[in-house]
Amino acid sequence: MTDLVTFGETMLRLSPPRGERLETAREFEVQAGGAESNVAVAAARLGRDAAWFSKLPDSPLGRRVVGELRSHGVATDGVVWDDEHRQGLYYLEHGVEPRPTNVVYDRADAAVTTLETGEIDLDAVRDADVCYTSGITPALSTTLHATTKDVLEVAQEAGTTTAFDLNYRTKLWTPDEAAAGYRDLFDAIDVLFAAQRDAETVLGRDGDAESVARGLAADYDFETVVVTRGAEGSLALADGDVYEQGVYEAETHDAIGTGDAFVGGYLAKHLDGGDVADSLQWASATASFKRTIEGDVAVVTPEDIERVVADEGDGISR
Amino acid sequence: MTDLVTFGETMLRLSPPRGERLETAREFEVQAGGAESNVAVAAARLGRDAAWFSKLPDSPLGRRVVGELRSHGVATDGVVWDDEHRQGLYYLEHGVEPRPTNVVYDRADAAVTTLETGEIDLDAVRDADVCYTSGITPALSTTLHATTKDVLEVAQEAGTTTAFDLNYRTKLWTPDEAAAGYRDLFDAIDVLFAAQRDAETVLGRDGDAESVARGLAADYDFETVVVTRGAEGSLALADGDVYEQGVYEAETHDAIGTGDAFVGGYLAKHLDGGDVADSLQWASATASFKRTIEGDVAVVTPEDIERVVADEGDGISR
Amino acid sequence: MTDLVTFGETMLRLSPPRGERLETAREFEVQAGGAESNVAVAAARLGRDAAWFSKLPDSPLGRRVVGELRSHGVATDGVVWDDEHRQGLYYLEHGVEPRPTNVVYDRADAAVTTLETGEIDLDAVRDADVCYTSGITPALSTTLHATTKDVLEVAQEAGTTTAFDLNYRTKLWTPDEAAAGYRDLFDAIDVLFAAQRDAETVLGRDGDAESVARGLAADYDFETVVVTRGAEGSLALADGDVYEQGVYEAETHDAIGTGDAFVGGYLAKHLDGGDVADSLQWASATASFKRTIEGDVAVVTPEDIERVVADEGDGISR
Amino acid sequence: MTDLVTFGETMLRLSPPRGERLETAREFEVQAGGAESNVAVAAARLGRDAAWFSKLPDSPLGRRVVGELRSHGVATDGVVWDDEHRQGLYYLEHGVEPRPTNVVYDRADAAVTTLETGEIDLDAVRDADVCYTSGITPALSTTLHATTKDVLEVAQEAGTTTAFDLNYRTKLWTPDEAAAGYRDLFDAIDVLFAAQRDAETVLGRDGDAESVARGLAADYDFETVVVTRGAEGSLALADGDVYEQGVYEAETHDAIGTGDAFVGGYLAKHLDGGDVADSLQWASATASFKRTIEGDVAVVTPEDIERVVADEGDGISR
Amino acid sequence: MTDLVTFGETMLRLSPPRGERLETAREFEVQAGGAESNVAVAAARLGRDAAWFSKLPDSPLGRRVVGELRSHGVATDGVVWDDEHRQGLYYLEHGVEPRPTNVVYDRADAAVTTLETGEIDLDAVRDADVCYTSGITPALSTTLHATTKDVLEVAQEAGTTTAFDLNYRTKLWTPDEAAAGYRDLFDAIDVLFAAQRDAETVLGRDGDAESVARGLAADYDFETVVVTRGAEGSLALADGDVYEQGVYEAETHDAIGTGDAFVGGYLAKHLDGGDVADSLQWASATASFKRTIEGDVAVVTPEDIERVVADEGDGISR
Amino acid sequence: MTDLVTFGETMLRLSPPRGERLETAREFEVQAGGAESNVAVAAARLGRDAAWFSKLPDSPLGRRVVGELRSHGVATDGVVWDDEHRQGLYYLEHGVEPRPTNVVYDRADAAVTTLETGEIDLDAVRDADVCYTSGITPALSTTLHATTKDVLEVAQEAGTTTAFDLNYRTKLWTPDEAAAGYRDLFDAIDVLFAAQRDAETVLGRDGDAESVARGLAADYDFETVVVTRGAEGSLALADGDVYEQGVYEAETHDAIGTGDAFVGGYLAKHLDGGDVADSLQWASATASFKRTIEGDVAVVTPEDIERVVADEGDGISR
Repeated sequence: MTDLVTFGETMLRLSPPRGERLETAREFEVQAGGAESNVAVAAARLGRDAAWFSKLPDSPLGRRVVGELRSHGVATDGVVWDDEHRQGLYYLEHGVEPRPTNVVYDRADAAVTTLETGEIDLDAVRDADVCYTSGITPALSTTLHATTKDVLEVAQEAGTTTAFDLNYRTKLWTPDEAAAGYRDLFDAIDVLFAAQRDAETVLGRDGDAESVARGLAADYDFETVVVTRGAEGSLALADGDVYEQGVYEAETHDAIGTGDAFVGGYLAKHLDGGDVADSLQWASATASFKRTIEGDVAVVTPEDIERVVADEGDGISR
Repeated sequence: MTDLVTFGETMLRLSPPRGERLETAREFEVQAGGAESNVAVAAARLGRDAAWFSKLPDSPLGRRVVGELRSHGVATDGVVWDDEHRQGLYYLEHGVEPRPTNVVYDRADAAVTTLETGEIDLDAVRDADVCYTSGITPALSTTLHATTKDVLEVAQEAGTTTAFDLNYRTKLWTPDEAAAGYRDLFDAIDVLFAAQRDAETVLGRDGDAESVARGLAADYDFETVVVTRGAEGSLALADGDVYEQGVYEAETHDAIGTGDAFVGGYLAKHLDGGDVADSLQWASATASFKRTIEGDVAVVTPEDIERVVADEGDGISR
Repeated sequence: MTDLVTFGETMLRLSPPRGERLETAREFEVQAGGAESNVAVAAARLGRDAAWFSKLPDSPLGRRVVGELRSHGVATDGVVWDDEHRQGLYYLEHGVEPRPTNVVYDRADAAVTTLETGEIDLDAVRDADVCYTSGITPALSTTLHATTKDVLEVAQEAGTTTAFDLNYRTKLWTPDEAAAGYRDLFDAIDVLFAAQRDAETVLGRDGDAESVARGLAADYDFETVVVTRGAEGSLALADGDVYEQGVYEAETHDAIGTGDAFVGGYLAKHLDGGDVADSLQWASATASFKRTIEGDVAVVTPEDIERVVADEGDGISR
Repeated sequence: MTDLVTFGETMLRLSPPRGERLETAREFEVQAGGAESNVAVAAARLGRDAAWFSKLPDSPLGRRVVGELRSHGVATDGVVWDDEHRQGLYYLEHGVEPRPTNVVYDRADAAVTTLETGEIDLDAVRDADVCYTSGITPALSTTLHATTKDVLEVAQEAGTTTAFDLNYRTKLWTPDEAAAGYRDLFDAIDVLFAAQRDAETVLGRDGDAESVARGLAADYDFETVVVTRGAEGSLALADGDVYEQGVYEAETHDAIGTGDAFVGGYLAKHLDGGDVADSLQWASATASFKRTIEGDVAVVTPEDIERVVADEGDGISR
Repeated sequence: MTDLVTFGETMLRLSPPRGERLETAREFEVQAGGAESNVAVAAARLGRDAAWFSKLPDSPLGRRVVGELRSHGVATDGVVWDDEHRQGLYYLEHGVEPRPTNVVYDRADAAVTTLETGEIDLDAVRDADVCYTSGITPALSTTLHATTKDVLEVAQEAGTTTAFDLNYRTKLWTPDEAAAGYRDLFDAIDVLFAAQRDAETVLGRDGDAESVARGLAADYDFETVVVTRGAEGSLALADGDVYEQGVYEAETHDAIGTGDAFVGGYLAKHLDGGDVADSLQWASATASFKRTIEGDVAVVTPEDIERVVADEGDGISR
Repeated sequence: MTDLVTFGETMLRLSPPRGERLETAREFEVQAGGAESNVAVAAARLGRDAAWFSKLPDSPLGRRVVGELRSHGVATDGVVWDDEHRQGLYYLEHGVEPRPTNVVYDRADAAVTTLETGEIDLDAVRDADVCYTSGITPALSTTLHATTKDVLEVAQEAGTTTAFDLNYRTKLWTPDEAAAGYRDLFDAIDVLFAAQRDAETVLGRDGDAESVARGLAADYDFETVVVTRGAEGSLALADGDVYEQGVYEAETHDAIGTGDAFVGGYLAKHLDGGDVADSLQWASATASFKRTIEGDVAVVTPEDIERVVADEGDGISR
């Protein structure tokens, strides 16, 4: 039995050296990155059994993705291999003020956009403790939206906890499209992760984080709602109780994947029997730690996170 | 007035270091490459006025392509900028025996596939001495096939010499499709470059190079036919006369773009008033020189080629 | 007709990786840099037609410079090629406190020091809207001083606006030499850019920026005087009116070329019809943006600068 | 059930760039390499289920090894983590004639030298089809010698085919020591791989490859003996029949790991139901292919090897 | 006559690029580093004659260490070459908050641990002005402890000033072991450098820096005691007088070796005839300067330090 | 007493990666190289005491040169530091057929061109066993020509053997100038090294190597004449006896410095008491070994050369 299954798209990310721009680059660093596999990697590295389902081109590029995920201990046996579609890419130009970090997506027609429910090992989904995907997945294609809904329903029905992060991306759909997409899935979701910014932009939820959490929980009957507020920390609502968590100070080397590290840290601790407060603390520590590391994924060990958490007296900014 | 205009697709090429495979790569070298811009670069570097027409995404990636071409002196004012389609890519893994050099195309849905005749500066085409494209261009989309035909006809009508290299690519179309595509264009072509291998595979032309050249010239009324035979050298047929040329010995560092360097060297010398024999010699020398250089394009000077040609006594393998 | 012509020296800059010193370096990054071509690059990238005149050795090194400038869209047809003199260089060691960034010039006997008036395309100068050089140029040789004076006079006479940045360099001449050199040129200058520090050190102008500007304008009859004050922002005096501009906050990756980006941004906006306030704002935004980019030149697009300017509410430090 | 289990030491290999020497190096490439894991990687990449058993320091360095092996699909759950001993290393300086490629071992006191039988999952050994180690393993410590013997006996008793490559290393033990060490294990070995050179140096077996194979098989009752003869090809003796195989021509980029790729290719084909001739052919093809790739391991796919084998007409040197 | 002799271990340090972790590294930067050679390098670069004694493996790795030290002008003729033991290593992962910079030692069984008194050129020790080692040396082996004591006594007896930095390392011995080790040497030490943190942890010295210094001087009869307090600056007690010194502000690129640069700067100035205050100022300036440079050693010139010291008004944080 | 003193210019060499051209380079490898210091390095690494005299700019660049030479064990105390002139450079583009390896000198106005006899430690010259320079040195300036003559005469008079390699460089002087320059020095030279090609081009010596050697010895009374014939091997004439030596086969990675390695190997063996035949053999082996190593200098050990020499049976091509 697997602790965690996730599904979604993983891209190759191509990024020029710091201080260089895409339009003059002569060299790209290559890494694999995608919200759901980032979560699986964090959980696997923190000691959980984690598997990732997806569809990739049967090419060196698809194998490149799988090789990197396996190196972190994520099971990739459920990947479906495709002969016709592309490997999704994104170009990443790291910026510093006033030049923003710039992401250029090149994920149209990626193999994963054709992933159908029947191609996923649903028994593995049923046997898992937690099944996770993010709001990026249903945004990628109509097919994937349907697959997402099916899988979450299958999981929930089997008693697998379903977890979902809104992960709103303006370059993929409009707020209205996203709102409709999310609402179609909310019945099948037990644990919701939401950036407060996304809850406001897409779902029109104003007010402070607690009222956002309470409102969402009330409207959609989520078991748990975790609201993240950037530098302001995070908040979880579970069984009517509210838990707050500050962020651990970090010098940011690479901010990409911070949110996924947060979810991965949360789920890893939760799956290890941690309560909501502990899970939230691990989420925050894993997210901060990720910021110091090049690449999408949190190259962490349990000891790394324990050390951050133990320094809580000093390291937390409230 | 421009000496040479070319049009077609230019991709970004992404290649891992020597000895590494795509599926374990952590770094890609980035360069711009495409048959028609490769020809324009060689000609421009050898002293001709050369312009390249195409359509590129209005993104850092499209600008990346234009910047590199401009650095070699190619005029890119005629590039059309597009907001919806992709920048074509290809991945290049350099191999040595028994591991073949492997090219993985990722050019589907590239901006250039939507390039229509009306988007090209036809006056520039009419004013040029030579207008060049290759068999890759019509293979990329129905739209591009039509555009190719239009442009070649416009050029020919205006007295601009039209030049075309078969450049057959198995990954783009079947021999039958290619044969039909080529034949549809042959009327509008004055100077044909053909690898003997392509003439055989696609056009079913058997026999030695001379008979292939004579057959093609007879059937399609080309002014000039240049047949390349790899290590066996090349042969030109013009006004009924045959010219033969050996290859200059080279230690190959990067074979990609050798054929385009050949065409670029030929056209550069031809446009400079060289006769067929001289042009063929420059073609051969530029092609060999290219093999020593990383990347698709022939980073050459006229002096470089003159030096190769002057060493003919020693350096030619017949 | 060209919007902007600039002339001066462009060197190759050689710099070891961050954290390494010149005296233990095993690798240099290579880039082209020079005040006047930096200005031309910024203007060209921001949409203006820009040309750069100079003299370079007819060698791979001279062509290296031209290739990089062309990649940014600067016209280099006016470059004169020389068989006898050197390519100027500078070594750059990036430092952080308390180790200063160190520049070691190796520009003695550079080809440009022999550039005579007759070698410059004066018709192009006459046809341009603006003709720019900096105080570095006359400092390089007696010949260049005379050429500078000639060209500025030719320009002014033809109605081309002449622009000049003091750009005082202690390693090239003493304050007294520089003062004499500048004064000899001031009659031929319409728009003066001056770091307040230079105005004080070289020209003995004390007082606040406005009084410096008013004093210089009064004494030398400049149309416009722009005084830069580092982190304190900048100030322009035109037609008796004063315009002030703060700096946009930036995390500095590479400070070299910031002043040139300022001038380039100013002239680009001015040539696009911007008024003094707009031009000053673009100057400031382009300068800040430059700081985030490796190399001498501002690899920018108009959209980049528009975005900085639009964030003015947040991003300006006053 | 696993197709193949291997056990032994895997080191980090540290190598300076080509053309540089260890004693002036400023940069090392880092890779994981060890005879038995190299075999497991080749087999896993060629489609078999392969697991590797060993003992590693519980440190980033030990995890570095495991991560790389997992990326190729090798199961590493059986690795034992150690708190007291070192991660074995080897330094590799690539040479060309007359400078030999130089290996400097730094494997003293490595964690694996303390690996005891009781720390290995013997059920997994019993369940496997083939259990492999090489002559390096018993050479590393008395403990490992005993463990090697135990594991091979357990395997053989359970009906798991045991395979062994002499892999004689002069820097680890003398020929006499090695001969004694090997002979102590031969009873427990079903399939022997032996470089003819090692058979001669260590076991005193003169004569041609066939007589060496027949002699060894007769004396120690091996099911199969495979003798490799470098550029002369290889030979297998099984059930009294002899099979010969030439080498596939290769341009060598990195010769390290060629022998392990040979064994991995052999076992992969054998485990897939290939007969001796087929297995020998895959062994040879995988070995040649490996030579083109940087690092200890054969980054191959089944398609790569099929392509080499299919070119047999051209590519084999006899 | 040599100004300074130091003895101890120098390791190769292996570090992945910034932002990468040891466990995913594919490349290590290689440098030589060790407390006592770091001190010798700083002193040599600042103009003193400095020699370093040690024992290294007679291998490319040992020669790698010697080559780097010689490049900075340190005499290494006294190095003893060993055929049996290892080259000590340490792996360095640079971290930023909340990920600590991590040092993994791999120095067990290093050649230096067998260095005996008789292998050191004691005449050179007697002829030197200052003889230095640090608390790391006696911690490495019983043999080295005895050698350390012998050499310091020989030096002191001959009138060579003996200097010692506590340099407590938790990974080498416990506080109690260290305390006993230090006390056994204190009689032979004239000048003691002590981090206040070490004085407290190991020697149980509480109170402010001055009282620590006075206590140690009183108890062990040191000529001079220098106490460093990190960002709080440093303090020297000599002949009953106290000298205080702030730190020069620095942006830290690489903190490793800062303490050794401090000692090296102090001794260099002292050996040049500087008084205690001057020496302390140079110590502080050299330490700050070191922070900006990649690697263990302070790649400085006297001019660099003079410039830092001259900026004292601005640059000191008190 | 020093075994060997050499004097001459050492430049920084700047070279782009293999396959790249100077005119598109973005990165240069940096190394120190010069005929006379190359000889000193080879001799020092092969166990001799070697010192190098020259004049360098008192800048990080001059120190860069000295640091690299010292790392190989060459004494550089005799270097004179200069405040006014340049550090000589050369750009090196590695080529393969038909693109020649290209050297672009940038050594005009180098500090060494002002080196006068009085600035050299003549006592050290007198105390040495051998004093070496090459024909490059007198070609660099009139001053250096005079200094060269003085130093060789001082050496010869003191009984120091003087050695000289013609080292003709077409980019420095014409054959006639060189012939006059050489002849002015020949009286002061004991051991002459001459490429047969140079002897013919500059000195008009036709015939086979032996007759060239005999002719030169007869005309100028050299003790020893060593003639090198590229792939044909070398020949020495001493005391009327002729010694011949083939070349050791080598795969060339970097041919620059091969001739200097030859001289360095010869002198090292000679200074170690080797006879002419031995010295010639070491010359040949060191030269071949050098070809495998990046950079100007032969990074060798005595063991490396002994190994090459011992393989003579196989490795020599006659």
